[in-house]
Amino acid sequence: MRRHSRIVRIGKVKIGGDNPVLVQSMTKTDTRDISSTVKQILSLEDVGCEIIRVAVPDKEAANAISEIKKQIHIPLIADIHFDPRLAELSILNGADKIRLNPSNIEDKEWIVKIAKIAKERGVPIRVGANLGSFKVRPTNVVKALIDSVANEIKILNDVDFDDIVVSIKSSDVITTLQANMKIAKMFDYPLHLGITEAGPLFESLVKSSAGIGYLLINGIGDTIRYSISDEPTVEVEAGFSLLKALHLRERGLTIISCPTCGRCEIDLFPMVKRVKSEFGNISVPLKVAIMGCVVNGPGEARDADIGLAGGKHSGVIFKHGKIVKTVPEKDLYNEFKKELIKLIKERSSS
Amino acid sequence: MRRHSRIVRIGKVKIGGDNPVLVQSMTKTDTRDISSTVKQILSLEDVGCEIIRVAVPDKEAANAISEIKKQIHIPLIADIHFDPRLAELSILNGADKIRLNPSNIEDKEWIVKIAKIAKERGVPIRVGANLGSFKVRPTNVVKALIDSVANEIKILNDVDFDDIVVSIKSSDVITTLQANMKIAKMFDYPLHLGITEAGPLFESLVKSSAGIGYLLINGIGDTIRYSISDEPTVEVEAGFSLLKALHLRERGLTIISCPTCGRCEIDLFPMVKRVKSEFGNISVPLKVAIMGCVVNGPGEARDADIGLAGGKHSGVIFKHGKIVKTVPEKDLYNEFKKELIKLIKERSSS
Repeated sequence: MRRHSRIVRIGKVKIGGDNPVLVQSMTKTDTRDISSTVKQILSLEDVGCEIIRVAVPDKEAANAISEIKKQIHIPLIADIHFDPRLAELSILNGADKIRLNPSNIEDKEWIVKIAKIAKERGVPIRVGANLGSFKVRPTNVVKALIDSVANEIKILNDVDFDDIVVSIKSSDVITTLQANMKIAKMFDYPLHLGITEAGPLFESLVKSSAGIGYLLINGIGDTIRYSISDEPTVEVEAGFSLLKALHLRERGLTIISCPTCGRCEIDLFPMVKRVKSEFGNISVPLKVAIMGCVVNGPGEARDADIGLAGGKHSGVIFKHGKIVKTVPEKDLYNEFKKELIKLIKERSSS
Repeated sequence: MRRHSRIVRIGKVKIGGDNPVLVQSMTKTDTRDISSTVKQILSLEDVGCEIIRVAVPDKEAANAISEIKKQIHIPLIADIHFDPRLAELSILNGADKIRLNPSNIEDKEWIVKIAKIAKERGVPIRVGANLGSFKVRPTNVVKALIDSVANEIKILNDVDFDDIVVSIKSSDVITTLQANMKIAKMFDYPLHLGITEAGPLFESLVKSSAGIGYLLINGIGDTIRYSISDEPTVEVEAGFSLLKALHLRERGLTIISCPTCGRCEIDLFPMVKRVKSEFGNISVPLKVAIMGCVVNGPGEARDADIGLAGGKHSGVIFKHGKIVKTVPEKDLYNEFKKELIKLIKERSSS
């Protein structure tokens, strides 16, 4: 069962409550380079990114937000560290949310000022804790992260601000999930999930899916981000891949394909790749199975909308676990493709 | 806390109890092609594979086991469907474990015969359930999978055989974990985990890590396999990547690297790739951090043994969160590499 969280509005989208879990990413461009940043955000929108965060390390970056916002279509979060003037400037330039750790701000009058302007403009603040925030390594990291977040929240609550999103990330999966399981019970603010510095694509897919997946399966999490040392679009694709796998979102193509074994007598992997490259961008939800053998193929992939399974010099095409056509191996992919296109058209028009 | 499971011996390795969670894979070659199969198993051993499964679709494949076994160094599981004679033949040819669903075998006298020979030779049997085993789609899939496994176990127990490993896999993550959470409480046999037909590399890393990860975090699972429609070595690499992330195994290089953002002023991803390609095969456990900026870099990667963080025209090298050296950007990678090699030598000799 999903954790109860309050609804927070970020620009035109809402998170928390019964709203779908949204997929975020963060730009890897220099925010001051407006055209590169916009280009990257538009490419992220193309793969479905629903909220974008940009780093705001200086005034020029904060001022760039205004022009960036004009050219994009999804809410923008300004990521700020230490300097409260950049928070104010980002809000004035139209940021839809700011990420700010109030305990990093030494001049407490600034907290009052930022909370006031954020409230006036309906801009929520994401607070969070990172291991890096502590001067020395705490003996109990989970407790330290939670205490830190609770302190951030208190600072904002004390100036009558509660339009808050919380995020606790660590590069350690277990630390991240322990801290989130606890904070989820302490407050009802929406939670943004991620494993920080999760590494290259391969490693991050493993770590982030295990960590974010565990929390989502436990009903925790309102937005997610895969941090990956790679192109930003893969972060979004991974996010949707996980949400689809956990039945939290429906979206485009899902491939069920077997790893092959000594029973497989067809060249399966190239067909898997072709389906992915030719149909990876469809918008209707469709489950496609590509199986090495007929023995278990159709039955095991019974939940697939359509599938193929290889045999000896031939293959079968099946729908919902039932064989509808047997074709010679050389025609297998093309016949399958025809059926697949037909199915996509039916689905799209219904 | 880890689930209590009984210990089962598979050739020279033990699973269950307090034994480490082992990483399995399955060959994708034609088992009858002995040289290709051996070559693939040896390449899997190279990346750490601890148990290998091969498909046994006919007598020739069963007979090949004897020669394959001579040339490999890890226990071998014979994967059999329907034909009990292949189970007997595989055991006689030296298989260390057989995968067999007794309910698939119509002649019940064969069950007695297989159980007898398996017991004599100390060969355990893995039973399991797949959605494909059901003639029609059950209304309650989780219950059907559990009932099916319970039935398989009963058939073996009835002939006084209990050297059993259980596996329930589905291509659906939620189904897999719900069924495993329940079966884990019903029996104390070791559990082999996996998401079946999990798809291409990207999709499988997401689905398998979420599903297998959830169960492992809950203390469930004694062996694991990533099913991936790709080269078999990635299945093993993914397995260890997950076990390392969950602190269940220690092994070689762990990369902590940031996704970069507008604050990063160095070309980080090529350095991540270089570290992975140059040091991906080290055997000593070592955590390496590669961070885009100095602001949070060393602090957030405090748990890393060694790391680098980019700055403006320079970078820093840090150990355990403390900066030990500042170097011009052009020398950053080479200086870092020197320190890394030094550290690996220290670790290896201690």
